[in-house]
Amino acid sequence: MNTPRYTPLITSLPATTPFVGPEVQERARGRAFAARLGANENVFGPSPKAIKAMQDAVPETWMYGDSASHDLREALAAHHGVTMDNIVIGAGIDGLLGSLVRMTVAQGDRVVTSAGAYPTFNYHVNGFGGELVQVPFRNDHEDPHALIAKATEVEAKLVYLANPDNPMGTWHSAEMVSDMIDRLPDGCLLVLDEAYVEFAPEGTAPPINGDDPRVIRMRTFSKAYGMAGARVGAAIGHKGLIDSFAKVRDHFGMSRISQAGALAALLDQDYLQQTLAKVATARDRISDIARTNGLMPLPSATNFVTIDCGRDGDFARAVVAEMIERDIFIRMPFTAPEDRCIRISAGTPADLDLLETTLPAALDAARNKSV
Amino acid sequence: MNTPRYTPLITSLPATTPFVGPEVQERARGRAFAARLGANENVFGPSPKAIKAMQDAVPETWMYGDSASHDLREALAAHHGVTMDNIVIGAGIDGLLGSLVRMTVAQGDRVVTSAGAYPTFNYHVNGFGGELVQVPFRNDHEDPHALIAKATEVEAKLVYLANPDNPMGTWHSAEMVSDMIDRLPDGCLLVLDEAYVEFAPEGTAPPINGDDPRVIRMRTFSKAYGMAGARVGAAIGHKGLIDSFAKVRDHFGMSRISQAGALAALLDQDYLQQTLAKVATARDRISDIARTNGLMPLPSATNFVTIDCGRDGDFARAVVAEMIERDIFIRMPFTAPEDRCIRISAGTPADLDLLETTLPAALDAARNKSV
Repeated sequence: MNTPRYTPLITSLPATTPFVGPEVQERARGRAFAARLGANENVFGPSPKAIKAMQDAVPETWMYGDSASHDLREALAAHHGVTMDNIVIGAGIDGLLGSLVRMTVAQGDRVVTSAGAYPTFNYHVNGFGGELVQVPFRNDHEDPHALIAKATEVEAKLVYLANPDNPMGTWHSAEMVSDMIDRLPDGCLLVLDEAYVEFAPEGTAPPINGDDPRVIRMRTFSKAYGMAGARVGAAIGHKGLIDSFAKVRDHFGMSRISQAGALAALLDQDYLQQTLAKVATARDRISDIARTNGLMPLPSATNFVTIDCGRDGDFARAVVAEMIERDIFIRMPFTAPEDRCIRISAGTPADLDLLETTLPAALDAARNKSV
Repeated sequence: MNTPRYTPLITSLPATTPFVGPEVQERARGRAFAARLGANENVFGPSPKAIKAMQDAVPETWMYGDSASHDLREALAAHHGVTMDNIVIGAGIDGLLGSLVRMTVAQGDRVVTSAGAYPTFNYHVNGFGGELVQVPFRNDHEDPHALIAKATEVEAKLVYLANPDNPMGTWHSAEMVSDMIDRLPDGCLLVLDEAYVEFAPEGTAPPINGDDPRVIRMRTFSKAYGMAGARVGAAIGHKGLIDSFAKVRDHFGMSRISQAGALAALLDQDYLQQTLAKVATARDRISDIARTNGLMPLPSATNFVTIDCGRDGDFARAVVAEMIERDIFIRMPFTAPEDRCIRISAGTPADLDLLETTLPAALDAARNKSV
């Protein structure tokens, strides 16, 4: 008998990584990126008040973080008009999705998402032996009607919707999402990933109702609040569901420094507004650069712009490769026909200067290679 | 049908918390602790170099952390004389134990540990539906012979040993642990939790052999390196086992700030030695205070001293309650007969001044309540 003995499920899983990180790519290339525009990080960074709060917390990191994340949950509850009992904090949306899937998905249970939607959610579903059932995007949007129809058909335990969507940057109105919630089949929970919602127009997020057991909202400090490396996310939902996270979560797993930073970031809404303005300006400039190069930017409610390169996935993959070769880290959708696009995160003016000078040559090289 | 539908396993679990954190207690009391000596945190804190590295990393926390934790793994590999392929980084030993249990324990699989050993390990085993089989401590030590005998008898997939032990602070020699490894039944992995091993005498940790698939070593930056709130642990083992963590771990889950801090802390071994000296001094003083009060301190290879109060568990619980009432946060073992003891973490000289003045009154009060 070999040691260790893995579970049959674990033995069956591939050792996949949802994404290859930019540092991993840099080491493989032997060269640093000049602009980091591939992971939808927020180059404008955290609020100076959050930076100060984190730096002040560093000498106190000999203490475990508050296992209840009390102060952060209290502030989030006030911010969202719910109670603390409606909120659980975790290591980013990634960590919270893992806990949620573990709580609900046993082997063979079905889960519905969009083909090409967030791969880390799929990673968790596969990791707990769930059966992923995918519906296509429709006109570069996730398709609420198809998601509901499929969830009903396969009696899904979870249905996943990112609004706004990643990787396309498109979005649905709050009315559309509310309608989707109303049409959920019995016993199916909507996982509403709102990682990018702060960037979206007013009227994108439905009102949060802490009494509604049909939906769980995922929010993060990684995007608009500029703290991806701090690993702080929040799940907001019905008390019974939120309570259940206590059965599986890593109770002392939240960094003390990160908790302090997230609280200060949330309380600095002025800085958030400044960030949103900078991101909007960057989105406009990315779109302009795309059009100047004969490409078609999609409308975006996020901190990235997805750009239709007008040909097939092979061509877009070549563009991404040529950009990376030229030290600009970007990514692109995984599935056709969305993979005709490339995806570029909002950058600083200096980042976008580089984008502007690099994109024409990358496009030329890609065109020459894929005639 | 109710929403959400939990898995049968999750429905069966109690919403337990392995420990109640000190902040939770403080809010319940409505009063802060004057000394925080209950969670085996390291009051002497991280190296100044680690503090600087973390503070310098704060403005960069807009970037996700390196998903491979490359630099930290490289440094740990050099430190321990293994390769990077033998090391995976996780959110403390707690997080790594959760992943390991998930990889190996399916419902009904048996796992052996000591009654009264680390409850967070038990939490994970229960959380994945494993069957915990416990053997008693023997003379306030974990009992390698009994653990091996029980693991053999029940065909356990995992057997857990903390060396040095928590909550008793006792330890076994490297020879004893090596002998235990040699006597492991086929197919049983030794989970060797060495959270406290830096505090232990030379000759407590067996040599690390990256080619040995029978044992996985758990190390942490929470204890000797003074970074409990940063959540950095390392699992060291055979490449095949370490690779398998990629199937379940949260690939972008490590805080960028924490990774930077752990690397700097590891590289400042001089500071570690200073900490170890301060902890040794604190242990001696705690032991002296215990003896002055007619109690019996146990020898300790950790950063805490477990003290035999000479009566039963009810008395020790009363002592803990009276200490907490007097604003000194301490804890104690959970199971008899070890629960005749209280457990006090190494504190600053000021902390131990408070301990010295408070313990006599707490003991008097406990004696008066339990005559």
